Amino acid sequence: MAKIALLHGPNLNLLGTRETHIYGSVTIADIGARVAAAAPGHEVRPFQSNHEGALIDYIQEARTWAQGLLINPGAFTHYSYALRDAIAAVKLPAVEVHLSNIHAREEFRHKSVIAPVCVGQICGFGWRSYLLGLRALLDHLQDQS
Amino acid sequence: MAKIALLHGPNLNLLGTRETHIYGSVTIADIGARVAAAAPGHEVRPFQSNHEGALIDYIQEARTWAQGLLINPGAFTHYSYALRDAIAAVKLPAVEVHLSNIHAREEFRHKSVIAPVCVGQICGFGWRSYLLGLRALLDHLQDQS
Amino acid sequence: MAKIALLHGPNLNLLGTRETHIYGSVTIADIGARVAAAAPGHEVRPFQSNHEGALIDYIQEARTWAQGLLINPGAFTHYSYALRDAIAAVKLPAVEVHLSNIHAREEFRHKSVIAPVCVGQICGFGWRSYLLGLRALLDHLQDQS
Amino acid sequence: MAKIALLHGPNLNLLGTRETHIYGSVTIADIGARVAAAAPGHEVRPFQSNHEGALIDYIQEARTWAQGLLINPGAFTHYSYALRDAIAAVKLPAVEVHLSNIHAREEFRHKSVIAPVCVGQICGFGWRSYLLGLRALLDHLQDQS
Amino acid sequence: MAKIALLHGPNLNLLGTRETHIYGSVTIADIGARVAAAAPGHEVRPFQSNHEGALIDYIQEARTWAQGLLINPGAFTHYSYALRDAIAAVKLPAVEVHLSNIHAREEFRHKSVIAPVCVGQICGFGWRSYLLGLRALLDHLQDQS
Amino acid sequence: MAKIALLHGPNLNLLGTRETHIYGSVTIADIGARVAAAAPGHEVRPFQSNHEGALIDYIQEARTWAQGLLINPGAFTHYSYALRDAIAAVKLPAVEVHLSNIHAREEFRHKSVIAPVCVGQICGFGWRSYLLGLRALLDHLQDQS
Amino acid sequence: MAKIALLHGPNLNLLGTRETHIYGSVTIADIGARVAAAAPGHEVRPFQSNHEGALIDYIQEARTWAQGLLINPGAFTHYSYALRDAIAAVKLPAVEVHLSNIHAREEFRHKSVIAPVCVGQICGFGWRSYLLGLRALLDHLQDQS
Amino acid sequence: MAKIALLHGPNLNLLGTRETHIYGSVTIADIGARVAAAAPGHEVRPFQSNHEGALIDYIQEARTWAQGLLINPGAFTHYSYALRDAIAAVKLPAVEVHLSNIHAREEFRHKSVIAPVCVGQICGFGWRSYLLGLRALLDHLQDQS
Amino acid sequence: MAKIALLHGPNLNLLGTRETHIYGSVTIADIGARVAAAAPGHEVRPFQSNHEGALIDYIQEARTWAQGLLINPGAFTHYSYALRDAIAAVKLPAVEVHLSNIHAREEFRHKSVIAPVCVGQICGFGWRSYLLGLRALLDHLQDQS
Amino acid sequence: MAKIALLHGPNLNLLGTRETHIYGSVTIADIGARVAAAAPGHEVRPFQSNHEGALIDYIQEARTWAQGLLINPGAFTHYSYALRDAIAAVKLPAVEVHLSNIHAREEFRHKSVIAPVCVGQICGFGWRSYLLGLRALLDHLQDQS
Amino acid sequence: MAKIALLHGPNLNLLGTRETHIYGSVTIADIGARVAAAAPGHEVRPFQSNHEGALIDYIQEARTWAQGLLINPGAFTHYSYALRDAIAAVKLPAVEVHLSNIHAREEFRHKSVIAPVCVGQICGFGWRSYLLGLRALLDHLQDQS
Amino acid sequence: MAKIALLHGPNLNLLGTRETHIYGSVTIADIGARVAAAAPGHEVRPFQSNHEGALIDYIQEARTWAQGLLINPGAFTHYSYALRDAIAAVKLPAVEVHLSNIHAREEFRHKSVIAPVCVGQICGFGWRSYLLGLRALLDHLQDQS
Repeated sequence: MAKIALLHGPNLNLLGTRETHIYGSVTIADIGARVAAAAPGHEVRPFQSNHEGALIDYIQEARTWAQGLLINPGAFTHYSYALRDAIAAVKLPAVEVHLSNIHAREEFRHKSVIAPVCVGQICGFGWRSYLLGLRALLDHLQDQS
Repeated sequence: MAKIALLHGPNLNLLGTRETHIYGSVTIADIGARVAAAAPGHEVRPFQSNHEGALIDYIQEARTWAQGLLINPGAFTHYSYALRDAIAAVKLPAVEVHLSNIHAREEFRHKSVIAPVCVGQICGFGWRSYLLGLRALLDHLQDQS
Repeated sequence: MAKIALLHGPNLNLLGTRETHIYGSVTIADIGARVAAAAPGHEVRPFQSNHEGALIDYIQEARTWAQGLLINPGAFTHYSYALRDAIAAVKLPAVEVHLSNIHAREEFRHKSVIAPVCVGQICGFGWRSYLLGLRALLDHLQDQS
Repeated sequence: MAKIALLHGPNLNLLGTRETHIYGSVTIADIGARVAAAAPGHEVRPFQSNHEGALIDYIQEARTWAQGLLINPGAFTHYSYALRDAIAAVKLPAVEVHLSNIHAREEFRHKSVIAPVCVGQICGFGWRSYLLGLRALLDHLQDQS
Repeated sequence: MAKIALLHGPNLNLLGTRETHIYGSVTIADIGARVAAAAPGHEVRPFQSNHEGALIDYIQEARTWAQGLLINPGAFTHYSYALRDAIAAVKLPAVEVHLSNIHAREEFRHKSVIAPVCVGQICGFGWRSYLLGLRALLDHLQDQS
Repeated sequence: MAKIALLHGPNLNLLGTRETHIYGSVTIADIGARVAAAAPGHEVRPFQSNHEGALIDYIQEARTWAQGLLINPGAFTHYSYALRDAIAAVKLPAVEVHLSNIHAREEFRHKSVIAPVCVGQICGFGWRSYLLGLRALLDHLQDQS
Repeated sequence: MAKIALLHGPNLNLLGTRETHIYGSVTIADIGARVAAAAPGHEVRPFQSNHEGALIDYIQEARTWAQGLLINPGAFTHYSYALRDAIAAVKLPAVEVHLSNIHAREEFRHKSVIAPVCVGQICGFGWRSYLLGLRALLDHLQDQS
Repeated sequence: MAKIALLHGPNLNLLGTRETHIYGSVTIADIGARVAAAAPGHEVRPFQSNHEGALIDYIQEARTWAQGLLINPGAFTHYSYALRDAIAAVKLPAVEVHLSNIHAREEFRHKSVIAPVCVGQICGFGWRSYLLGLRALLDHLQDQS
Repeated sequence: MAKIALLHGPNLNLLGTRETHIYGSVTIADIGARVAAAAPGHEVRPFQSNHEGALIDYIQEARTWAQGLLINPGAFTHYSYALRDAIAAVKLPAVEVHLSNIHAREEFRHKSVIAPVCVGQICGFGWRSYLLGLRALLDHLQDQS
Repeated sequence: MAKIALLHGPNLNLLGTRETHIYGSVTIADIGARVAAAAPGHEVRPFQSNHEGALIDYIQEARTWAQGLLINPGAFTHYSYALRDAIAAVKLPAVEVHLSNIHAREEFRHKSVIAPVCVGQICGFGWRSYLLGLRALLDHLQDQS
Repeated sequence: MAKIALLHGPNLNLLGTRETHIYGSVTIADIGARVAAAAPGHEVRPFQSNHEGALIDYIQEARTWAQGLLINPGAFTHYSYALRDAIAAVKLPAVEVHLSNIHAREEFRHKSVIAPVCVGQICGFGWRSYLLGLRALLDHLQDQS
Repeated sequence: MAKIALLHGPNLNLLGTRETHIYGSVTIADIGARVAAAAPGHEVRPFQSNHEGALIDYIQEARTWAQGLLINPGAFTHYSYALRDAIAAVKLPAVEVHLSNIHAREEFRHKSVIAPVCVGQICGFGWRSYLLGLRALLDHLQDQS
């Protein structure tokens, strides 16, 4: 059984509560539920914040109880070296996910400063990116054990 | 009648309380008052924070009550893609203001990552940039209605 | 009482005479009238040219009668160092205005070579950018006096 | 039931036949089998080539029978605009996968010229990247239908 | 009488067979026919390939029978220095054509590594770019003779 | 019957009057005549100027009588965003021509700031670039009608 | 007697509590104690946060009681212009320290956006960088007085 | 005896008429006189314009009577490829002069697009740059004869 | 005794068959013979292709029989990351040779994407680069054994 | 007891002998004496040269007698890869010091090519940078022993 | 009466002793003599070295006897920040001269790191650049006195 | 019989005298002997210096007795334009050698400013690079004679 910290970066709390005709009515609560449902026998603890520091705090604290990180860093992806250092410091395997295909959007979104400290990256599949990321993380944990 | 969220980014809380011989004694409280005075019949709710996350929280919450944003992002102007995404997400018209002419200062201040999601930008006129921004925002709101 | 030189750069003479369903029917003549009307007791002398040299000539001549410049440099914004030097040479306070938010358009429009010699910049508010710029300029002149 | 073209770019034919102590003994034949096994009721047709042109030919031909592309472009990821144009031209949904986390390797591997014409990208999970990609592709196809 | 090698780069074989509502029903076969028809008394030998090497082979072989090259390098335009070297090596006059205006599209399409070894470039006029290119090439050949 | 504005940028007035052993004795008058001769039933009105502003004036005026622009912007090709804006503003189809292959010369000549607002570009064929451009323009006009 | 604000940026709270076989068992508490011990007759008030805003708040508040700043900005070193502005605004002399030699690590760590507003920078000497920084700061304060 | 075209670029007409406490009372008329005085037996014809096109016209016309060009291109130095082409086209030896040391000023002034078509460059010596340039030009002419 | 795969990239098949007054009459057949003659007791198997994929196929197959690679990648030197990956994958020692001094030619030829996976590089000595490369390779193999 | 080579790069010999009202009267002789005084029981051998080669010679020779290097490379900091290689070659621990805060000066001074081969860097504290550097070096030596 | 240090950088000692059919037979000895002859009543002390350090030594020593520097830094122009610092340190007015027009040669020669600390720059006039530089320097000295 | 100047740049004097377990015990004396032994009937005169100026002096003097240069410029490879100019000035054929494959090391080592004035470059084969270089140089000399 693994414990997974599920992190959502800035503005992801708005998901599904606005423009539902575009993004659908899937909220991060829904995503949390779906991820949990997809991980029977495991524990998934979701956390969202618009505060870089709060995400770092949570990651640091996660090293005391989690076996892995599933993280959508939102816009922090592109400049938060502090978040990157946090992931590197706790030495928990991390999987980076994005709703959209960041490599197909504005130039500044092509670069992830988080990626070099993660196992891998999944982007472009909407809320399903999370489910794929969960599976990737669980498999990775199993390989390591 | 419009409700306007007036946001001040990092370090702007120091305005007018130090080096008054240079910047004068105008504080952000004064600016808030002047902006309010210049918007009779409208409501202006000021908010300052040195925390990127707090500004994002406030912007997100503003979508429940405000019709527009008047924002001086301070140094966040140049790197906070999270702030940018927040403004884009709430879909409120935003006007970006700066005390100084950022295009006439250090190279790194020439670029605003916030600008592409705003209606327009006003910079270089000291505290008056806010009054001009308010007027621009109110006019914009009127045009939209 | 102040005398203001109101300068319109290349292609702005077409404003309002074409595609009126998009840009409206506001012409630079209208803008001149509105700026004048917004400056009772002051004198505003408008000038438009598609010729960089003609704009420079006008700015140079303005130092004999004007107290300030209100200028929309059009496309010259992005490469006319000669225009920049003219503004710097006459030492008249200048306010730079743009109809559109240049920082939200093509990459080459993000940079203004004119900005470093101006008091400030206002962009994105259509013809109202001019009115805001006028106010900013008049206030600036009053502060200086 | 969907038909999926499974494409492996240059040098991937060597997978699992050398340095098995490092990469394991998983070959692209194994990957093909696992992908097929993970897609019961669907048909997966694998193809590997070290020839850019052969991959393009295959992609073009796939538009006559396939509903989607699952592709690991190998080193072509970083410069084959012809491959990109092929994917864009056939208008089949494509999912890009990589064995390694390309964003954590040499600078030149950070950029994918293929990504902008794909639904999404999955990288860093070894041969499992393919399984995750298959799932993402099938889900995408189902969403579209 | 001149013999002209007419080369079509990658993905051009799809022309006219898909999305005919957009690109029309003109195929490269049609283009070949139209080019031939526009060159009475001359011989035009068309060749298309998605393989960089096949195009190079053809260009090399053309030096034994052709007097000039009419080439749309497709996406190879932007990175195939090998194609460039082939054209330079055979010392046949070459005219580079493109269906679309490559200078008005994505940044990476603005640069042609082929252009420096060609007589000239024609782009943006759809299948007519070929006819214009043919004429330019024939005139060039006549001037040389 | 179409009316075509034929524009020659800076220094093209010298064509054919100097170094005739190199460039031949073809003048822009000759080019005008040849273009006219190649457009029976159409009207071609040539204009040359070394003044960016004069070219813009002419383009603006052309929208009252012309159906298309055939333009060799000379050195303005590489920096005159004002010229670009003029072409974009009048919304007349424009074809850009150059005597030499600008992509095979100095680095700074590889980039055309004019190209993105033109139908297409033809370069490298000496005075014949104009005839090819005329044909391209007339065909384009016919397609549009 | 001087009062010194000792600031530790993000992730430094983990120091010494993990991987002690590598970094040793020196914690920031230890560093605080050693700095204090090295500053007899002075007062050192340590503060650590993973929150950029909290560090800015602390720096702003320090201007009411401190004579100088001793700061290891962690990863904020490389992008927090807000932190930079805070240091510049309070006009307290600041000394920047780093455990590792940032100029010998990844490219992005070579640049400090904080450095231009500090007296000097010390890096590469592990926890001793702090003691050296303290000494430098105290000497600087003495020179100023 | 040589005839020299003496050209002054934009804003140089203001020289000596303003801020005489800084730049002294030397006007371009004075410079013309001093250059003429320094060239007994030669003829110097001065010309100033703020219009790029007028300068080009003058340079073109100069090829009918002048043996050399002495030119201070002002701000055109940094972007006027049209001026550069004019100098190259008339094939008159040209000497480029500047009042200030352009290589010691803002970054954009370090690059001269004019220099590659001139014999040499002299900058930094105020109005004396012209006298030095004259001498350099006359000597160059004598060497050629 | 060593077996050496001798690879010639695109367009090298033309060597010696054209412009013999410049490059001499040395063909790649001659080079193959000379290399073989210079390696008595060893076996050299030459292969030339204009197809990137064919070269990769050959390199991959070489790992079953060769001890080393002697390769002139031609224009692939500058962009074929697939070729680079092939050499890296087969783990055979490779020596990169070029006829010309690529570092003294056009800018784009200065960079070799192949070099980082080779033992060394020899360029500039015409067909003799191959003989030098052979010697370097044989010596390297001897050192390893 | 340790022996320390104290190296001063170009132009540092002028320190304290000119502009004493600005830099004070501290000479490198004084610095040598202060460093020596701060290292009782150790031996410090100072050396200054304006010659890159002489500094390299000295560093090479130092490996026969010194345990560490304390070096202010002056302007060589920014381009002398030879000096860097010398430090790397002798494998003595080196501490890099600068009088001024190089990261707060001209852009070209921000980069140190020496830093990657040093233990750490200290800059901005005037002559005291040396004393801090000495202490850092001695502590480092003690840690190693 | 002024004393002038005349400095020649690396490789200038070869001037006039080789390829006299190209550069003529003017040596630096001749230049020294001509400069001296052009400065009656003044003293000119020439010095040439291929050693950067020797030039710096000479410049430093010159501050004890010279009033100005006339320097052709040769290739040091483009990278010797140490030479630049030497000139800046001695605070003697310096004039930079070059035989060739460095702005019309290879890209790397366009930039002078020396220029920002000189009064002005003269280049392109062969040995006469020195005479012009002398005159500029003497005039500058007279202006200062 | 040819006389060859064999030049070793900075820090190469340390070769073989330290870390012999890594680099072996081959010194530059040994290399000199081996090169001499490989050139029976020729004369090889070795020279090493850490001084850029000394190498330039030696190259200049070599033109009076040598027929060719065999040079390992060490770190000067990457920035010494003065060394480059020296080689270009003496017009002796030069072959550039390096012990390591500079194109496979740090980015800054990929660029050789020396290469454009050499016949060719050999790198990556340890001390054997010299022997290969000698052979290349002798062959080149024979070709020229």
